[in-house]
Amino acid sequence: MENCFNMTPLCPDANNTLGTVCIFGTGDFGRSLGLRLLQAGYSVVFGSRNPQNSSLLPKGAQVLSHVEAAQTSRVIFIAVHRENYEFLSAFSQELAGKVLVDISNNLRKNQYPESNAEYLAKLLPQANVVKAFNTVSAWALQSGSLDASRQVFVCGDCESKQMVMDIARSLGLIALDQGSLLAANELENYPLQLFPLWRLPMYIATGLTAAFFIYCVLTDVVYTFVTEGKNISYRIVVSIANTIFPIVSLIMLALCYLPGVIAAILQLYNGTKYKRFPNWLDKWMLCRKQLGLVALAFAFLHVLYSLVIPIRYYVRQRQNIYTISLVKDNKTLTFDSAMSWRSDSFYTLGILGFGLYVLLGITSLPSVSNMVNWREFRFVQSKLGHITLLLCTAHTLVYGWNKFLYLSRYKWYLPPAYVLSLIVPCIVLVLKLILITPCVDRVITRIRQGWERKSVHDRSGQPLI
Amino acid sequence: MENCFNMTPLCPDANNTLGTVCIFGTGDFGRSLGLRLLQAGYSVVFGSRNPQNSSLLPKGAQVLSHVEAAQTSRVIFIAVHRENYEFLSAFSQELAGKVLVDISNNLRKNQYPESNAEYLAKLLPQANVVKAFNTVSAWALQSGSLDASRQVFVCGDCESKQMVMDIARSLGLIALDQGSLLAANELENYPLQLFPLWRLPMYIATGLTAAFFIYCVLTDVVYTFVTEGKNISYRIVVSIANTIFPIVSLIMLALCYLPGVIAAILQLYNGTKYKRFPNWLDKWMLCRKQLGLVALAFAFLHVLYSLVIPIRYYVRQRQNIYTISLVKDNKTLTFDSAMSWRSDSFYTLGILGFGLYVLLGITSLPSVSNMVNWREFRFVQSKLGHITLLLCTAHTLVYGWNKFLYLSRYKWYLPPAYVLSLIVPCIVLVLKLILITPCVDRVITRIRQGWERKSVHDRSGQPLI
Amino acid sequence: MENCFNMTPLCPDANNTLGTVCIFGTGDFGRSLGLRLLQAGYSVVFGSRNPQNSSLLPKGAQVLSHVEAAQTSRVIFIAVHRENYEFLSAFSQELAGKVLVDISNNLRKNQYPESNAEYLAKLLPQANVVKAFNTVSAWALQSGSLDASRQVFVCGDCESKQMVMDIARSLGLIALDQGSLLAANELENYPLQLFPLWRLPMYIATGLTAAFFIYCVLTDVVYTFVTEGKNISYRIVVSIANTIFPIVSLIMLALCYLPGVIAAILQLYNGTKYKRFPNWLDKWMLCRKQLGLVALAFAFLHVLYSLVIPIRYYVRQRQNIYTISLVKDNKTLTFDSAMSWRSDSFYTLGILGFGLYVLLGITSLPSVSNMVNWREFRFVQSKLGHITLLLCTAHTLVYGWNKFLYLSRYKWYLPPAYVLSLIVPCIVLVLKLILITPCVDRVITRIRQGWERKSVHDRSGQPLI
Repeated sequence: MENCFNMTPLCPDANNTLGTVCIFGTGDFGRSLGLRLLQAGYSVVFGSRNPQNSSLLPKGAQVLSHVEAAQTSRVIFIAVHRENYEFLSAFSQELAGKVLVDISNNLRKNQYPESNAEYLAKLLPQANVVKAFNTVSAWALQSGSLDASRQVFVCGDCESKQMVMDIARSLGLIALDQGSLLAANELENYPLQLFPLWRLPMYIATGLTAAFFIYCVLTDVVYTFVTEGKNISYRIVVSIANTIFPIVSLIMLALCYLPGVIAAILQLYNGTKYKRFPNWLDKWMLCRKQLGLVALAFAFLHVLYSLVIPIRYYVRQRQNIYTISLVKDNKTLTFDSAMSWRSDSFYTLGILGFGLYVLLGITSLPSVSNMVNWREFRFVQSKLGHITLLLCTAHTLVYGWNKFLYLSRYKWYLPPAYVLSLIVPCIVLVLKLILITPCVDRVITRIRQGWERKSVHDRSGQPLI
Repeated sequence: MENCFNMTPLCPDANNTLGTVCIFGTGDFGRSLGLRLLQAGYSVVFGSRNPQNSSLLPKGAQVLSHVEAAQTSRVIFIAVHRENYEFLSAFSQELAGKVLVDISNNLRKNQYPESNAEYLAKLLPQANVVKAFNTVSAWALQSGSLDASRQVFVCGDCESKQMVMDIARSLGLIALDQGSLLAANELENYPLQLFPLWRLPMYIATGLTAAFFIYCVLTDVVYTFVTEGKNISYRIVVSIANTIFPIVSLIMLALCYLPGVIAAILQLYNGTKYKRFPNWLDKWMLCRKQLGLVALAFAFLHVLYSLVIPIRYYVRQRQNIYTISLVKDNKTLTFDSAMSWRSDSFYTLGILGFGLYVLLGITSLPSVSNMVNWREFRFVQSKLGHITLLLCTAHTLVYGWNKFLYLSRYKWYLPPAYVLSLIVPCIVLVLKLILITPCVDRVITRIRQGWERKSVHDRSGQPLI
Repeated sequence: MENCFNMTPLCPDANNTLGTVCIFGTGDFGRSLGLRLLQAGYSVVFGSRNPQNSSLLPKGAQVLSHVEAAQTSRVIFIAVHRENYEFLSAFSQELAGKVLVDISNNLRKNQYPESNAEYLAKLLPQANVVKAFNTVSAWALQSGSLDASRQVFVCGDCESKQMVMDIARSLGLIALDQGSLLAANELENYPLQLFPLWRLPMYIATGLTAAFFIYCVLTDVVYTFVTEGKNISYRIVVSIANTIFPIVSLIMLALCYLPGVIAAILQLYNGTKYKRFPNWLDKWMLCRKQLGLVALAFAFLHVLYSLVIPIRYYVRQRQNIYTISLVKDNKTLTFDSAMSWRSDSFYTLGILGFGLYVLLGITSLPSVSNMVNWREFRFVQSKLGHITLLLCTAHTLVYGWNKFLYLSRYKWYLPPAYVLSLIVPCIVLVLKLILITPCVDRVITRIRQGWERKSVHDRSGQPLI
């Protein structure tokens, strides 16, 4: 018990202030951190080469030589570039037993063979190195606008970690224990990444959008201009956009479920689950969630574009012209019950599909998916996911209906864009249908439970003790 | 300090590899875990009955007898069925002081009188049993596609727990401390559940949808067919669906606030809050959030169904036919200011109600509701919740207006469906209105602060020291 | 190891029950907590002044004098008002070494110079005070409906904290470690706040809505009544509402990005980032997220109001009257390609703007923003945020088009409301444009890296060791 109190250097002392914290290095991060620590009620001591020059440092901080500064506190922040770490080995005596907080970041991922923190630990084997605060920017610390990263990831040995986490908490930050110093490398790479898993989906979305844009402009605007001499370029803004968005959305939703199907086929073919998938499949599977969310964004735009249809000038004007022409020509309109069924089914399929789409999106929010167990997650993402794909594909099929039969729809012998969008989803659905037939499903289930086709020794999938 | 280092068996050693981890059992989970550990840089030793047979095990893993394997590591994963645990008591000597990780799962909830981990701890009282990894599936470990459950719940004694959590973290998993081994039972039940709190709301929603579907088909499609001989079955797809969805949504929203009202009445009646509620009320109160979210889903569908109205073939065609008939009959249309007020109020109430509905939904996201304190949560869920119910009920009342006065609306003497949907919401709102009148509210507040009507000793609600 | 077991007073004992927990104080919270502990399987002992009077206490609990009760358990919950804490110093002998859980709350923020828990620790220096459970209400504990605050924030010394966290977990609560007892003050203030950061945005939204409501009613309804004698008050419900919502949304979105621009200008002017911003700017910057979310809510309502346009009675009736008049007057409608471009661009800009708006809203969900690093967060919130503002401003500009040129639009010499809404967004966009020109941007970047214009000693921004 006594131990536990001694190890906390940050207890309120007689003057009811927090303890003293030492910072080595008077650069930007050091100064920002120092200011923030002072504001939180700590005494701050900077360790500097020339302690006389303290003009830039926050008011209230003390500046001493490194050796003197090190003696004032058990926790020392090393706000120094990695290149200058070797300099610290001169003080190995003074730093023995101290908690050194490595806050450094690199310019690119895996810049050095070992993490900065591990390098520091190797240089000063008697000190207790903790990696922390590298995910918080000096600017954010300074301005107090910690909207984003109030999270401080901390790794190191348990006792030292605890002290650093206490300091982080007293600065209003959220300290997250990331285990031992082995995690330092990951922590140093973390702030350098920019949506790594979103890249592939964004490239695919951009590529598909561009391709279908060219395709639609060609078969719609250019075709009309060439054959009829009419300029209908105004269709680009909404009509063509609202053709492209649902197409890209449907294809990407299908691409989100295709790797799962491929994986199952590969496992059937290999007769085991213990053979690694090819690398491209692994990468593809890892960004399925992102594929699905980009698809949802496109579906969302498609819904909005569809719902503004009746308030567009283009539609209202054409509607008026049509009604007037009907009156003038003295035509009678009849009500076609079959058309009504088709139109309403089309909308119902779309709405239900979009509803499930949104549900899938919500369950992929981190806080929601953390609340469900594996069984529940698979139910939602696999069962509901495939039903969503089915509904959206049916929505597109009802949209097309029998149009694909009429040659007039094939401009320059090119099929309408929606026909192209159906290829991938139909393949996925047919393959999935085959995979869930009882006979195939039984084999896959056994393989996934550990059974191997060629294995002689253990066909039961039961653990051997 | 020294202690703390010794207890970590996973420090990088001279060869810069992680430590050695032992796995008892060569079944599916054992092999998947072993492969993953090897990939993360650990040395893996399997303990097996017949160490010669290692054909199935991941390359790079060592296979030894149980006794030999146990000596290689301080952490031993027990990837063995509970039925075979007794076998382990033979090695109680070798396992003394070791950290045994129980990863087992059962086939159904509370299958055994005690949790598997506690059973293991009883068999080997000198070992330190930690329950962990049972929420992660072998398949997910194997394929690396840990979309869902990257969370590893760990319980056991502090030191041993820490080691297992470190291993979990180094495999890229999120380790969550769940306290002592007493939590093992809960952890073992967790992966077996499938949306337990969603069942009742889903049953209610399905029941209500089915009942109102039959009711609407009867009074709309069947009635028209019987009396006029016309087939208007096309109305089922959108028109009737868009009657059912808002009705079910409104009733379920009311059902979400009804138990709170009943609870308050019971407390008034009992004159104390220390009497337990009947069981059905407790269950009902526990799934209020789920009731509300299902109601929101139905409201969402209602909004989409309503917004596609103007682009439906049915509506456009009827509109055209109507306009043409107006022209032919040479009728003049007049603009009715009162009708405009009513129509616009109807939409405004609906939109504002839906807006608050969505707000309630967002605040019930785990990450959002964790950010608010109890006072804020009550403000949103109780105040805003009842206002939402009020707006949605008013929306329905304006929709009905005076239609309920006309006998022609009562097909086969049955009231229109929307009238039925108003019963529960109106009851809830009237009761709530009574409960918030100052005189009643004062009594409830006192009861909830601990005051008891019949108590002789303490009427003040103040704590007695 | 042995240590670790001894310190847990809650191990299952021979009778397979949890340990004993003591509660001082028999008020509401004490009784609710006692009941809950009994339900979870603990033995509960109340410490009371008059142990004979136990009529109110949950069945199964024992009532003893304080001294006797204290001896039964290592953990004692102090369910007593702060005013009565001094009374406890009489038992300082008996409470030495015990874990005292301070669960008290105050009536207003910072009511006392020191937190209740720290006051208790001062009174009983030999006891280990832990602050916990104050964020959980007695009512919630009692009724079991812990929808909101299942989170128990715990602070204190490590060992004692652990015991209290174990108890919290075994009651089905989520225990969150908040560091040492220094955090007690924050914990005591937490349950007293009611959306502190939402106040300013809500005031701004209310003020703007009221101002623009009066302005629009004046220039629309009143103006028409005065000049033409027509009552068009029905326009208030939807038409005017749908003018106000987008205006307020746009202004608030701009207000969300204005402080960032002002801050950059101030830094340029000061030539350093180490000078604190004025207080009002700091406050403004802290509630930017809330400003943005309120703006999103208004945008959401604007979208719904716009989408119901074609199904409103007002619009349908006017449309019919218009069509009939066209037919009667034998006019021919022509299709204006430029109008179509303009109308469709208007909708496209609005839809894309709203899409990005929603994306910004989703990334500001706590669980999502915790998943991104600082670089990613800045990308989304700054880059995408300004693009959203640009799109929404362009949407409004296209809406206005050349209307502002016509004097007839200026009712009583007042500009249309949308013109007023463009002022702030245009200022923000122009200033931002200036700030991101390479020459200005370079200076700001250097300043934010720590460079100071007037500094003589260190212009490099490099840390000095």
